[in-house]
Amino acid sequence: MNAMPKPAPKALAFDVFGTVVDWHGGISAEVAALAARHGVSLNAADFARDWRAGYPVAMDRVRRGELPWLHIDALHRMILDSIVDRYGLNGLSEADRADLNLAWHRLPAWPDAVRGLQRLKAQFTITPLSNGNFSLLTAMAKSAGLPWDCVISAELFQHYKPDPETYLGCARLLGLQPAEVMMVACHPGDLRAAQRCGLQTAYVSRPLENGAGGGTGTEPTPVVAGEFDWVADSFEQLADCFTPSSS
Amino acid sequence: MNAMPKPAPKALAFDVFGTVVDWHGGISAEVAALAARHGVSLNAADFARDWRAGYPVAMDRVRRGELPWLHIDALHRMILDSIVDRYGLNGLSEADRADLNLAWHRLPAWPDAVRGLQRLKAQFTITPLSNGNFSLLTAMAKSAGLPWDCVISAELFQHYKPDPETYLGCARLLGLQPAEVMMVACHPGDLRAAQRCGLQTAYVSRPLENGAGGGTGTEPTPVVAGEFDWVADSFEQLADCFTPSSS
Repeated sequence: MNAMPKPAPKALAFDVFGTVVDWHGGISAEVAALAARHGVSLNAADFARDWRAGYPVAMDRVRRGELPWLHIDALHRMILDSIVDRYGLNGLSEADRADLNLAWHRLPAWPDAVRGLQRLKAQFTITPLSNGNFSLLTAMAKSAGLPWDCVISAELFQHYKPDPETYLGCARLLGLQPAEVMMVACHPGDLRAAQRCGLQTAYVSRPLENGAGGGTGTEPTPVVAGEFDWVADSFEQLADCFTPSSS
Repeated sequence: MNAMPKPAPKALAFDVFGTVVDWHGGISAEVAALAARHGVSLNAADFARDWRAGYPVAMDRVRRGELPWLHIDALHRMILDSIVDRYGLNGLSEADRADLNLAWHRLPAWPDAVRGLQRLKAQFTITPLSNGNFSLLTAMAKSAGLPWDCVISAELFQHYKPDPETYLGCARLLGLQPAEVMMVACHPGDLRAAQRCGLQTAYVSRPLENGAGGGTGTEPTPVVAGEFDWVADSFEQLADCFTPSSS
Protein backbone atom coordinates (compact mmCIF):
# COMPACT_ATOMS: atom_id res chain seq x y z
CA MET A 1 0.00 0.00 0.00
CA ASN A 2 3.07 2.24 0.26
CA ALA A 3 3.35 4.07 -3.03
CA MET A 4 6.98 5.13 -2.62
CA PRO A 5 9.66 4.51 -0.03
CA LYS A 6 10.02 7.55 2.22
CA PRO A 7 11.31 7.82 5.76
CA ALA A 8 8.46 7.23 8.20
CA PRO A 9 6.86 10.45 9.41
CA LYS A 10 7.28 11.57 13.02
CA ALA A 11 3.89 13.20 13.38
CA LEU A 12 0.46 12.66 11.85
CA ALA A 13 -1.81 15.69 11.33
CA PHE A 14 -5.49 14.87 10.84
CA ASP A 15 -8.21 16.70 9.07
CA VAL A 16 -11.18 16.40 11.42
CA PHE A 17 -14.64 17.12 9.92
CA GLY A 18 -15.45 14.05 7.83
CA THR A 19 -12.07 12.39 8.39
CA VAL A 20 -12.19 11.81 12.16
CA VAL A 21 -15.78 12.65 13.04
CA ASP A 22 -19.13 12.06 11.33
CA TRP A 23 -20.46 15.60 11.02
CA HIS A 24 -23.44 14.49 8.94
CA GLY A 25 -24.60 11.90 11.43
CA GLY A 26 -23.98 14.14 14.44
CA ILE A 27 -25.68 17.24 13.05
CA SER A 28 -28.63 15.31 11.58
CA ALA A 29 -29.32 13.66 14.92
CA GLU A 30 -29.23 16.93 16.89
CA VAL A 31 -31.36 18.77 14.33
CA ALA A 32 -33.92 15.95 14.24
CA ALA A 33 -34.17 15.93 18.04
CA LEU A 34 -34.53 19.71 18.21
CA ALA A 35 -37.18 19.74 15.45
CA ALA A 36 -39.14 17.03 17.26
CA ARG A 37 -39.08 19.08 20.48
CA HIS A 38 -40.49 22.03 18.55
CA GLY A 39 -43.07 19.93 16.65
CA VAL A 40 -41.46 20.86 13.33
CA SER A 41 -41.25 18.33 10.51
CA LEU A 42 -38.11 18.64 8.42
CA ASN A 43 -35.46 16.66 6.55
CA ALA A 44 -32.60 16.67 9.06
CA ALA A 45 -30.16 15.06 6.61
CA ASP A 46 -30.71 17.90 4.15
CA PHE A 47 -30.44 20.48 6.93
CA ALA A 48 -27.04 19.06 7.91
CA ARG A 49 -25.82 19.12 4.31
CA ASP A 50 -27.03 22.70 3.80
CA TRP A 51 -25.36 23.86 6.99
CA ARG A 52 -22.11 22.20 5.99
CA ALA A 53 -22.35 23.51 2.40
CA GLY A 54 -22.26 27.09 3.65
CA TYR A 55 -18.97 26.54 5.41
CA PRO A 56 -16.43 26.45 2.54
CA VAL A 57 -18.21 29.47 1.03
CA ALA A 58 -17.96 31.49 4.25
CA MET A 59 -14.40 30.35 4.87
CA ASP A 60 -13.32 31.37 1.40
CA ARG A 61 -14.70 34.85 2.09
CA VAL A 62 -12.34 35.01 5.08
CA ARG A 63 -9.47 33.61 2.99
CA ARG A 64 -10.03 36.29 0.32
CA GLY A 65 -10.21 39.03 2.94
CA GLU A 66 -13.88 39.85 2.30
CA LEU A 67 -14.56 39.01 5.94
CA PRO A 68 -12.19 39.66 8.86
CA TRP A 69 -10.81 36.64 10.70
CA LEU A 70 -13.78 34.76 12.14
CA HIS A 71 -13.51 31.35 13.71
CA ILE A 72 -15.68 28.44 12.72
CA ASP A 73 -18.12 28.83 15.60
CA ALA A 74 -18.93 32.30 14.27
CA LEU A 75 -19.16 31.09 10.66
CA HIS A 76 -21.38 28.16 11.66
CA ARG A 77 -23.68 30.54 13.49
CA MET A 78 -23.93 32.92 10.51
CA ILE A 79 -24.89 30.01 8.25
CA LEU A 80 -27.31 28.55 10.80
CA ASP A 81 -29.15 31.87 11.06
CA SER A 82 -29.39 31.99 7.28
CA ILE A 83 -31.03 28.55 6.87
CA VAL A 84 -33.36 28.02 9.85
CA ASP A 85 -36.28 29.90 8.29
CA ARG A 86 -36.18 27.70 5.22
CA TYR A 87 -36.71 24.64 7.42
CA GLY A 88 -39.53 26.13 9.48
CA LEU A 89 -37.31 26.60 12.54
CA ASN A 90 -37.69 30.38 12.63
CA GLY A 91 -39.13 30.15 16.15
CA LEU A 92 -35.80 29.02 17.63
CA SER A 93 -34.73 31.04 20.65
CA GLU A 94 -31.26 32.50 21.02
CA ALA A 95 -30.46 29.78 23.57
CA ASP A 96 -31.61 27.05 21.18
CA ARG A 97 -29.51 28.47 18.36
CA ALA A 98 -26.43 28.85 20.56
CA ASP A 99 -26.78 25.29 21.79
CA LEU A 100 -27.41 23.85 18.32
CA ASN A 101 -24.31 25.67 17.08
CA LEU A 102 -22.32 23.71 19.67
CA ALA A 103 -23.43 20.46 18.05
CA TRP A 104 -20.20 20.80 16.04
CA HIS A 105 -18.30 20.49 19.36
CA ARG A 106 -20.08 17.22 20.09
CA LEU A 107 -19.71 15.34 16.81
CA PRO A 108 -19.26 11.58 17.15
CA ALA A 109 -16.06 9.88 15.97
CA TRP A 110 -16.29 7.33 13.18
CA PRO A 111 -16.39 3.83 14.73
CA ASP A 112 -12.75 3.05 13.81
CA ALA A 113 -11.33 6.43 14.77
CA VAL A 114 -10.56 6.25 18.49
CA ARG A 115 -9.02 2.79 18.38
CA GLY A 116 -7.01 3.68 15.29
CA LEU A 117 -5.77 6.91 16.85
CA GLN A 118 -4.76 5.08 20.01
CA ARG A 119 -2.67 2.66 17.95
CA LEU A 120 -1.12 5.42 15.85
CA LYS A 121 -0.37 7.46 18.98
CA ALA A 122 1.88 4.67 20.21
CA GLN A 123 4.18 5.34 17.25
CA PHE A 124 3.65 8.96 16.25
CA THR A 125 2.74 12.33 17.63
CA ILE A 126 -0.89 12.77 16.58
CA THR A 127 -2.65 16.11 16.24
CA PRO A 128 -5.67 17.53 14.51
CA LEU A 129 -4.90 20.09 11.81
CA SER A 130 -8.36 21.45 11.27
CA ASN A 131 -10.13 24.64 10.36
CA GLY A 132 -12.24 24.13 13.48
CA ASN A 133 -11.43 26.63 16.19
CA PHE A 134 -9.17 25.67 19.06
CA SER A 135 -11.94 25.49 21.66
CA LEU A 136 -14.14 23.45 19.32
CA LEU A 137 -11.37 20.91 18.71
CA THR A 138 -10.54 20.74 22.41
CA ALA A 139 -14.16 20.24 23.43
CA MET A 140 -14.67 17.67 20.67
CA ALA A 141 -11.63 15.67 21.77
CA LYS A 142 -12.99 15.53 25.31
CA SER A 143 -16.48 14.64 24.21
CA ALA A 144 -15.53 12.01 21.60
CA GLY A 145 -12.46 10.65 23.43
CA LEU A 146 -9.96 11.58 20.73
CA PRO A 147 -6.52 10.96 22.26
CA TRP A 148 -4.57 13.81 20.60
CA ASP A 149 -1.08 14.63 21.82
CA CYS A 150 -1.86 18.31 21.22
CA VAL A 151 -4.43 20.44 19.39
CA ILE A 152 -3.46 22.44 16.31
CA SER A 153 -6.12 24.62 14.74
CA ALA A 154 -6.09 26.96 11.75
CA GLU A 155 -7.01 29.59 14.35
CA LEU A 156 -3.41 29.52 15.61
CA PHE A 157 -2.23 30.80 12.22
CA GLN A 158 -5.24 33.01 11.37
CA HIS A 159 -5.24 31.19 8.06
CA TYR A 160 -7.60 28.51 6.87
CA LYS A 161 -6.60 25.35 5.02
CA PRO A 162 -5.68 25.03 2.21
CA ASP A 163 -3.47 28.11 2.83
CA PRO A 164 0.17 26.94 3.12
CA GLU A 165 0.57 28.80 6.43
CA THR A 166 -1.49 26.06 8.10
CA TYR A 167 0.57 23.05 6.96
CA LEU A 168 3.90 24.80 7.42
CA GLY A 169 2.81 26.28 10.74
CA CYS A 170 1.84 22.83 11.98
CA ALA A 171 5.28 21.43 11.17
CA ARG A 172 6.99 24.45 12.74
CA LEU A 173 5.03 24.17 16.00
CA LEU A 174 5.93 20.49 16.20
CA GLY A 175 9.60 21.34 15.65
CA LEU A 176 9.65 19.19 12.49
CA GLN A 177 10.45 19.53 8.83
CA PRO A 178 7.35 19.41 6.57
CA ALA A 179 8.43 16.01 5.22
CA GLU A 180 8.41 14.63 8.75
CA VAL A 181 4.68 15.32 9.04
CA MET A 182 1.99 13.30 7.32
CA MET A 183 -1.40 14.85 6.60
CA VAL A 184 -4.31 12.42 6.95
CA ALA A 185 -7.60 13.39 5.30
CA CYS A 186 -10.57 12.13 3.33
CA HIS A 187 -10.45 15.24 1.11
CA PRO A 188 -8.01 15.05 -1.81
CA GLY A 189 -7.81 18.85 -2.03
CA ASP A 190 -6.55 19.10 1.52
CA LEU A 191 -3.92 16.44 0.85
CA ARG A 192 -2.80 18.06 -2.40
CA ALA A 193 -2.26 21.38 -0.63
CA ALA A 194 -0.30 19.62 2.11
CA GLN A 195 1.76 17.84 -0.53
CA ARG A 196 2.65 21.14 -2.19
CA CYS A 197 4.06 22.21 1.19
CA GLY A 198 6.21 19.07 1.37
CA LEU A 199 4.14 17.02 3.80
CA GLN A 200 3.58 13.30 3.37
CA THR A 201 -0.03 12.30 2.73
CA ALA A 202 -2.47 9.56 3.66
CA TYR A 203 -5.91 9.36 2.10
CA VAL A 204 -8.62 7.69 4.16
CA SER A 205 -11.88 7.17 2.31
CA ARG A 206 -15.07 8.16 4.09
CA PRO A 207 -17.79 7.32 1.58
CA LEU A 208 -20.56 8.18 4.06
CA GLU A 209 -19.22 11.64 4.92
CA ASN A 210 -22.32 13.30 3.47
CA GLY A 211 -24.71 10.66 4.77
CA ALA A 212 -26.36 7.81 2.87
CA GLY A 213 -27.27 9.04 -0.60
CA GLY A 214 -25.44 12.32 0.00
CA GLY A 215 -22.84 11.76 -2.72
CA THR A 216 -19.15 12.34 -2.28
CA GLY A 217 -19.69 16.03 -1.72
CA THR A 218 -17.47 18.92 -2.48
CA GLU A 219 -14.44 17.14 -3.94
CA PRO A 220 -14.52 17.56 -7.71
CA THR A 221 -11.27 15.75 -8.51
CA PRO A 222 -11.05 12.04 -7.70
CA VAL A 223 -8.00 10.40 -6.20
CA VAL A 224 -5.46 9.28 -8.79
CA ALA A 225 -3.69 5.96 -8.13
CA GLY A 226 -0.30 6.56 -6.52
CA GLU A 227 -1.04 10.21 -5.89
CA PHE A 228 -0.78 9.92 -2.11
CA ASP A 229 1.78 8.09 0.00
CA TRP A 230 -0.77 5.90 1.75
CA VAL A 231 -4.38 4.96 1.10
CA ALA A 232 -6.64 3.28 3.66
CA ASP A 233 -10.30 2.65 4.36
CA SER A 234 -10.09 3.35 8.09
CA PHE A 235 -7.70 4.50 10.81
CA GLU A 236 -7.34 0.88 11.89
CA GLN A 237 -6.15 0.01 8.39
CA LEU A 238 -3.84 3.03 8.42
CA ALA A 239 -2.38 1.82 11.73
CA ASP A 240 -1.86 -1.62 10.17
CA CYS A 241 0.46 0.04 7.61
CA PHE A 242 2.85 1.06 10.38
CA THR A 243 2.81 -1.91 12.74
CA PRO A 244 6.08 -3.86 12.64
CA SER A 245 4.36 -7.13 11.75
CA SER A 246 2.85 -5.78 8.53
CA SER A 247 5.63 -3.49 7.30
CA MET B 1 -9.40 25.73 51.82
CA ASN B 2 -11.52 27.93 49.53
CA ALA B 3 -10.58 31.51 50.35
CA MET B 4 -13.65 33.10 48.76
CA PRO B 5 -16.76 31.77 47.07
CA LYS B 6 -16.43 32.02 43.30
CA PRO B 7 -18.08 30.02 40.53
CA ALA B 8 -16.03 26.91 39.77
CA PRO B 9 -13.62 27.40 36.87
CA LYS B 10 -14.20 25.59 33.58
CA ALA B 11 -10.54 25.12 32.68
CA LEU B 12 -7.32 24.74 34.63
CA ALA B 13 -4.10 26.13 33.13
CA PHE B 14 -0.90 24.74 34.62
CA ASP B 15 2.54 26.18 34.90
CA VAL B 16 4.81 23.29 34.01
CA PHE B 17 8.50 23.61 35.03
CA GLY B 18 8.52 23.03 38.78
CA THR B 19 4.75 22.80 39.09
CA VAL B 20 4.07 19.66 37.02
CA VAL B 21 7.55 18.29 36.39
CA ASP B 22 10.71 18.04 38.47
CA TRP B 23 13.21 19.92 36.32
CA HIS B 24 15.90 19.74 38.96
CA GLY B 25 15.72 15.99 39.36
CA GLY B 26 15.45 15.35 35.63
CA ILE B 27 18.29 17.64 34.56
CA SER B 28 20.59 16.54 37.39
CA ALA B 29 20.16 12.89 36.48
CA GLU B 30 20.86 13.44 32.78
CA VAL B 31 23.87 15.67 33.48
CA ALA B 32 25.29 13.18 35.98
CA ALA B 33 24.94 10.32 33.49
CA LEU B 34 26.53 12.32 30.69
CA ALA B 35 29.42 13.43 32.91
CA ALA B 36 30.05 9.83 33.98
CA ARG B 37 30.18 8.72 30.34
CA HIS B 38 32.79 11.42 29.70
CA GLY B 39 34.75 10.67 32.87
CA VAL B 40 34.10 14.19 34.19
CA SER B 41 33.51 14.81 37.88
CA LEU B 42 31.01 17.60 38.56
CA ASN B 43 28.19 18.65 40.84
CA ALA B 44 25.13 17.81 38.72
CA ALA B 45 22.72 19.47 41.15
CA ASP B 46 24.57 22.77 40.82
CA PHE B 47 24.77 22.37 37.05
CA ALA B 48 20.99 21.98 36.89
CA ARG B 49 20.44 25.04 39.07
CA ASP B 50 22.86 27.14 37.00
CA TRP B 51 21.21 26.08 33.75
CA ARG B 52 17.79 26.95 35.13
CA ALA B 53 19.02 30.25 36.62
CA GLY B 54 19.97 31.49 33.16
CA TYR B 55 16.46 31.01 31.87
CA PRO B 56 14.52 33.91 33.45
CA VAL B 57 17.44 36.19 32.55
CA ALA B 58 17.40 35.14 28.89
CA MET B 59 13.62 35.24 28.75
CA ASP B 60 13.49 38.74 30.16
CA ARG B 61 15.87 39.84 27.40
CA VAL B 62 13.26 38.57 24.92
CA ARG B 63 10.44 40.24 26.87
CA ARG B 64 12.30 43.58 26.81
CA GLY B 65 13.01 43.25 23.09
CA GLU B 66 16.80 42.94 23.49
CA LEU B 67 16.57 39.56 21.77
CA PRO B 68 14.13 38.65 18.99
CA TRP B 69 11.53 35.99 19.75
CA LEU B 70 13.41 32.80 20.58
CA HIS B 71 11.76 29.72 21.97
CA ILE B 72 12.90 27.96 25.10
CA ASP B 73 14.84 25.26 23.27
CA ALA B 74 17.00 28.03 21.76
CA LEU B 75 17.36 29.86 25.08
CA HIS B 76 18.26 26.62 26.90
CA ARG B 77 20.92 25.92 24.29
CA MET B 78 22.45 29.42 24.61
CA ILE B 79 22.69 29.00 28.37
CA LEU B 80 24.02 25.46 28.10
CA ASP B 81 26.81 26.61 25.80
CA SER B 82 27.69 29.34 28.28
CA ILE B 83 28.09 27.02 31.29
CA VAL B 84 29.59 23.75 30.06
CA ASP B 85 33.20 25.01 30.19
CA ARG B 86 32.83 25.97 33.83
CA TYR B 87 31.94 22.36 34.65
CA GLY B 88 34.74 20.78 32.64
CA LEU B 89 32.38 19.61 29.91
CA ASN B 90 34.00 21.66 27.14
CA GLY B 91 34.69 18.47 25.17
CA LEU B 92 30.99 17.86 24.49
CA SER B 93 30.21 17.24 20.84
CA GLU B 94 27.42 19.02 19.01
CA ALA B 95 25.37 15.82 19.14
CA ASP B 96 25.89 15.54 22.91
CA ARG B 97 24.86 19.14 23.44
CA ALA B 98 21.79 18.83 21.22
CA ASP B 99 20.71 15.69 23.04
CA LEU B 100 21.33 17.14 26.51
CA ASN B 101 19.27 20.18 25.54
CA LEU B 102 16.36 17.82 24.91
CA ALA B 103 16.54 16.67 28.53
CA TRP B 104 13.98 19.45 29.13
CA HIS B 105 11.58 17.51 26.86
CA ARG B 106 12.00 14.41 29.02
CA LEU B 107 11.52 15.80 32.52
CA PRO B 108 9.76 13.48 34.97
CA ALA B 109 6.39 14.42 36.49
CA TRP B 110 6.15 14.86 40.25
CA PRO B 111 4.81 11.63 41.78
CA ASP B 112 1.33 13.07 42.39
CA ALA B 113 1.01 14.88 39.06
CA VAL B 114 -0.34 12.32 36.58
CA ARG B 115 -2.94 10.86 38.92
CA GLY B 116 -4.00 14.34 40.04
CA LEU B 117 -4.31 15.56 36.46
CA GLN B 118 -6.37 12.51 35.52
CA ARG B 119 -8.80 13.28 38.33
CA LEU B 120 -8.97 16.99 37.47
CA LYS B 121 -9.44 16.17 33.78
CA ALA B 122 -12.69 14.40 34.65
CA GLN B 123 -14.13 17.73 35.78
CA PHE B 124 -12.24 20.42 33.90
CA THR B 125 -10.45 21.11 30.66
CA ILE B 126 -6.78 20.90 31.60
CA THR B 127 -3.95 22.52 29.67
CA PRO B 128 -0.39 23.60 30.26
CA LEU B 129 0.20 27.35 30.08
CA SER B 130 3.95 27.35 30.00
CA ASN B 131 6.83 29.31 28.57
CA GLY B 132 8.13 26.02 27.19
CA ASN B 133 7.81 25.81 23.44
CA PHE B 134 4.92 23.91 21.85
CA SER B 135 7.02 20.97 20.69
CA LEU B 136 8.74 20.70 24.08
CA LEU B 137 5.39 20.59 25.91
CA THR B 138 3.98 18.09 23.42
CA ALA B 139 7.01 15.79 23.68
CA MET B 140 7.03 16.09 27.47
CA ALA B 141 3.36 15.16 27.70
CA LYS B 142 4.01 12.04 25.65
CA SER B 143 7.12 11.11 27.60
CA ALA B 144 5.74 11.77 31.10
CA GLY B 145 2.15 10.67 30.38
CA LEU B 146 0.57 14.06 31.12
CA PRO B 147 -3.07 13.74 30.01
CA TRP B 148 -3.64 17.33 28.75
CA ASP B 149 -6.78 18.12 26.80
CA CYS B 150 -4.70 20.47 24.62
CA VAL B 151 -1.31 22.20 24.70
CA ILE B 152 -1.04 25.97 25.15
CA SER B 153 2.43 27.48 25.03
CA ALA B 154 3.67 31.06 25.31
CA GLU B 155 5.01 30.42 21.81
CA LEU B 156 1.46 30.69 20.46
CA PHE B 157 1.34 34.32 21.59
CA GLN B 158 5.00 35.23 21.03
CA HIS B 159 4.90 36.56 24.57
CA TYR B 160 6.35 35.00 27.69
CA LYS B 161 4.64 34.82 31.06
CA PRO B 162 4.11 37.00 33.02
CA ASP B 163 3.03 39.13 30.03
CA PRO B 164 -0.78 39.46 30.11
CA GLU B 165 -1.03 38.30 26.48
CA THR B 166 -0.33 34.76 27.67
CA TYR B 167 -3.09 34.50 30.31
CA LEU B 168 -5.65 36.36 28.21
CA GLY B 169 -4.65 34.43 25.09
CA CYS B 170 -5.13 31.15 26.92
CA ALA B 171 -8.68 32.09 27.95
CA ARG B 172 -9.48 33.32 24.44
CA LEU B 173 -8.26 30.10 22.78
CA LEU B 174 -10.39 28.08 25.18
CA GLY B 175 -13.41 30.26 24.36
CA LEU B 176 -13.70 31.29 28.01
CA GLN B 177 -13.75 34.44 30.10
CA PRO B 178 -10.57 34.95 32.16
CA ALA B 179 -12.53 34.30 35.38
CA GLU B 180 -13.53 30.89 34.02
CA VAL B 181 -9.87 29.81 33.89
CA MET B 182 -7.80 28.93 36.95
CA MET B 183 -4.02 29.22 36.82
CA VAL B 184 -2.22 26.52 38.82
CA ALA B 185 1.41 27.17 39.74
CA CYS B 186 4.04 26.83 42.44
CA HIS B 187 5.35 30.34 41.63
CA PRO B 188 3.48 33.18 43.34
CA GLY B 189 4.65 35.67 40.69
CA ASP B 190 2.99 33.66 37.93
CA LEU B 191 -0.24 33.49 39.91
CA ARG B 192 -0.21 37.19 40.73
CA ALA B 193 0.15 38.06 37.06
CA ALA B 194 -2.70 35.69 36.19
CA GLN B 195 -4.81 37.26 38.93
CA ARG B 196 -4.24 40.74 37.50
CA CYS B 197 -5.71 39.40 34.23
CA GLY B 198 -8.81 38.15 36.05
CA LEU B 199 -7.99 34.44 36.25
CA GLN B 200 -8.67 32.36 39.34
CA THR B 201 -5.57 30.99 41.06
CA ALA B 202 -4.39 27.85 42.81
CA TYR B 203 -1.02 27.69 44.55
CA VAL B 204 0.58 24.26 44.80
CA SER B 205 3.71 24.18 46.93
CA ARG B 206 6.74 22.39 45.51
CA PRO B 207 9.38 22.78 48.23
CA LEU B 208 11.84 20.53 46.37
CA GLU B 209 11.65 22.42 43.07
CA ASN B 210 15.33 23.39 43.31
CA GLY B 211 16.43 20.05 44.74
CA ALA B 212 17.28 19.20 48.33
CA GLY B 213 19.10 22.14 49.89
CA GLY B 214 18.42 24.27 46.83
CA GLY B 215 16.27 26.80 48.64
CA THR B 216 12.99 28.14 47.36
CA GLY B 217 14.65 29.71 44.40
CA THR B 218 13.72 32.76 42.47
CA GLU B 219 10.53 33.78 44.27
CA PRO B 220 11.32 36.71 46.52
CA THR B 221 7.81 37.34 47.84
CA PRO B 222 6.20 34.62 49.95
CA VAL B 223 2.56 33.62 49.66
CA VAL B 224 0.23 35.71 51.82
CA ALA B 225 -2.65 33.85 53.49
CA GLY B 226 -5.85 34.22 51.47
CA GLU B 227 -4.00 35.66 48.50
CA PHE B 228 -4.95 32.84 46.14
CA ASP B 229 -8.27 31.09 45.68
CA TRP B 230 -6.92 27.66 46.49
CA VAL B 231 -3.79 26.33 48.17
CA ALA B 232 -2.68 22.71 48.03
CA ASP B 233 0.39 20.55 48.61
CA SER B 234 -0.16 18.33 45.58
CA PHE B 235 -2.40 17.85 42.55
CA GLU B 236 -4.15 15.05 44.40
CA GLN B 237 -4.99 17.48 47.18
CA LEU B 238 -6.11 20.04 44.61
CA ALA B 239 -8.39 17.43 43.04
CA ASP B 240 -9.80 16.69 46.52
CA CYS B 241 -10.98 20.34 46.66
CA PHE B 242 -13.29 19.75 43.71
CA THR B 243 -14.64 16.27 44.31
CA PRO B 244 -18.30 16.35 45.33
CA SER B 245 -17.68 14.44 48.54
CA SER B 246 -15.26 17.01 49.94
CA SER B 247 -16.85 20.23 48.71
